[in-house]
Amino acid sequence: MDSGAATWSLEELQLATRNHGVPLEALRYPITPLGLHYLLIHFDIPVVDTDTWRLEVGGRVGRPLSVSLDDIRARPSVTQAVTMECAGNGRARVWPRVVSQPWVLEAVGTAEWTGTPLRGVLEDAGLLDDAIEVAFEGLDAGIDGGVEQVYGRSLSIEDATADEVLLVYESNGRPLLPQHGFPLRLIVPGWYGMTSVKWLDRITAISEPYQGYQQAKAYRYRQTEDEPGEPVTRMKPRSLMVPPGMPDFMTRERFVEAGPVTVEGRAWSGWGNIASVGFSSDGGHTWSPAELGEQAGPHAWRGWSVVWHPEHPGTYELCCAATDGAGERQPLDPPWNVGGYANNAVQRVQVTVR
Amino acid sequence: MDSGAATWSLEELQLATRNHGVPLEALRYPITPLGLHYLLIHFDIPVVDTDTWRLEVGGRVGRPLSVSLDDIRARPSVTQAVTMECAGNGRARVWPRVVSQPWVLEAVGTAEWTGTPLRGVLEDAGLLDDAIEVAFEGLDAGIDGGVEQVYGRSLSIEDATADEVLLVYESNGRPLLPQHGFPLRLIVPGWYGMTSVKWLDRITAISEPYQGYQQAKAYRYRQTEDEPGEPVTRMKPRSLMVPPGMPDFMTRERFVEAGPVTVEGRAWSGWGNIASVGFSSDGGHTWSPAELGEQAGPHAWRGWSVVWHPEHPGTYELCCAATDGAGERQPLDPPWNVGGYANNAVQRVQVTVR
Repeated sequence: MDSGAATWSLEELQLATRNHGVPLEALRYPITPLGLHYLLIHFDIPVVDTDTWRLEVGGRVGRPLSVSLDDIRARPSVTQAVTMECAGNGRARVWPRVVSQPWVLEAVGTAEWTGTPLRGVLEDAGLLDDAIEVAFEGLDAGIDGGVEQVYGRSLSIEDATADEVLLVYESNGRPLLPQHGFPLRLIVPGWYGMTSVKWLDRITAISEPYQGYQQAKAYRYRQTEDEPGEPVTRMKPRSLMVPPGMPDFMTRERFVEAGPVTVEGRAWSGWGNIASVGFSSDGGHTWSPAELGEQAGPHAWRGWSVVWHPEHPGTYELCCAATDGAGERQPLDPPWNVGGYANNAVQRVQVTVR
Repeated sequence: MDSGAATWSLEELQLATRNHGVPLEALRYPITPLGLHYLLIHFDIPVVDTDTWRLEVGGRVGRPLSVSLDDIRARPSVTQAVTMECAGNGRARVWPRVVSQPWVLEAVGTAEWTGTPLRGVLEDAGLLDDAIEVAFEGLDAGIDGGVEQVYGRSLSIEDATADEVLLVYESNGRPLLPQHGFPLRLIVPGWYGMTSVKWLDRITAISEPYQGYQQAKAYRYRQTEDEPGEPVTRMKPRSLMVPPGMPDFMTRERFVEAGPVTVEGRAWSGWGNIASVGFSSDGGHTWSPAELGEQAGPHAWRGWSVVWHPEHPGTYELCCAATDGAGERQPLDPPWNVGGYANNAVQRVQVTVR
């Protein structure tokens, strides 16, 4: 039995209906339109009054800061296109089943984020010599795994002070939408989305590893519940195609007319540029290279396309597989771990040529 | 066995991850923020080039029209807040199970739509005396129920020429987002969302009832597959609450501190104003009236709130039930029909008081 015969509970369905993914046809946009970028909201979207909201920067720093949104907006600003994917993307296809947000393939998006480099803020606060990590905590609170918590994550000093890490207040040229972290969020390009803490409340330099639930318990690669596991960090290589032709409403199977079919998609990796994308029309038995296209910036997905010439009417299984500059290629079969993280197995699209 | 023990297939899950609902905490906004309004997209979001796009108005009219987006925008404009709900909202809780988009509760939203009254356009085209309906067809195409189709619906002349029916090009002050029908859609206040055809391509006055699949086969109240059934039209009364307190990530159960708790929500009906909203903290055995609040316009949901005084720590089941001006009240148990339409049974929220 593979996951195609699996079923999902009401609790999982509730998560699927509130945390939405990108409709796959929207992969044709280099920048995902407002409202179509994937969302994973662990708890509730908090209500924030910017008149009283302050970002507190403290812990192992020489000069603790309390900064308003205007203070942040007055700092040097950077706009960059960033592709972000949920670490749980693909979880619905891992087997044995893992119970959590049941993403199929669609937990990804690319936005143009505007903000200020985190490094400058940390420099102003003056990290003390014994600081080894920076913890980021949001205003969103709840219970996860039986633990009451605010959502929090940490980064090493090296990762936190990388050029591309931003404190962000705009997305696609507008103030952040409530669901994307208004008024201020972290954006850590290349990493899975759990890293980019939304609704920032406080940033704390710490001299011991951060022990928050989402860092120490969740988002770890484990083969058994008992082992500590390795942290989930950067995005593994993945490619997705815009399903060609016309869909069936219920099955999402596709129908195309005979003749050449241009298949296009996007590919990304947090471990380096995309080196190649392979395309298969026979379920992954044989592959041909796709043509690589544009990317909206060094941290954004890369377009790809291929002209497919189906030889005769019938049913085909289209697949795509990206390989990144670090030499890692998407697997044919889903990897498994306790959390169901980072299942970057190749996409499979059923197409009938008429 | 009730639907709480039901399970959902991969096909249903695929629909749930692409067609997103409003996170229930966002019911606190009178106008739903961009990107949080529910979406049901039967086929694919079409790509539209406004340089070549035209709305064709024809059929049983004296003066067929072919109008550009600029032509539409030059006409008298109206902005109105409209609450829209999917006819399939609540389908996941009907039993026996109905297989289609598996909404739990969240297929609703309120937007400020800007457009021009349809009636003026129909007057310019000059409906002929034998026209009995107006058909609306979109640019979205696919297969549903085994039938290849463009998405299409119709209205009687009386319904189509009502004051509040608009051809809409803006939502919340911005051009329509691609997923909401760019460049032009129909908005029919009070009716379930399937009526408000997106990505309009043509409007056709007809002298026989429209036979499109979404009118003649889908969206009908039927108790058996064989009967023609009655058409699904206006929204039944429904109220939803913002789940109070703090959630558990996985179960969405709520936790609140002892002491008075303000519970707020929204209520709406397509059959008249909301007359009252009842609140229960014991699973619907006893009820008290909520205080009714503002509504952003005659076609928008109405706010309501109640101060709940839980008497002791423990677990409670909160419910709310709206009654509309036509005297219809939400039922305690889900109604059933073949399509799983219009299940407006009361919302139930599990809350633990600590």
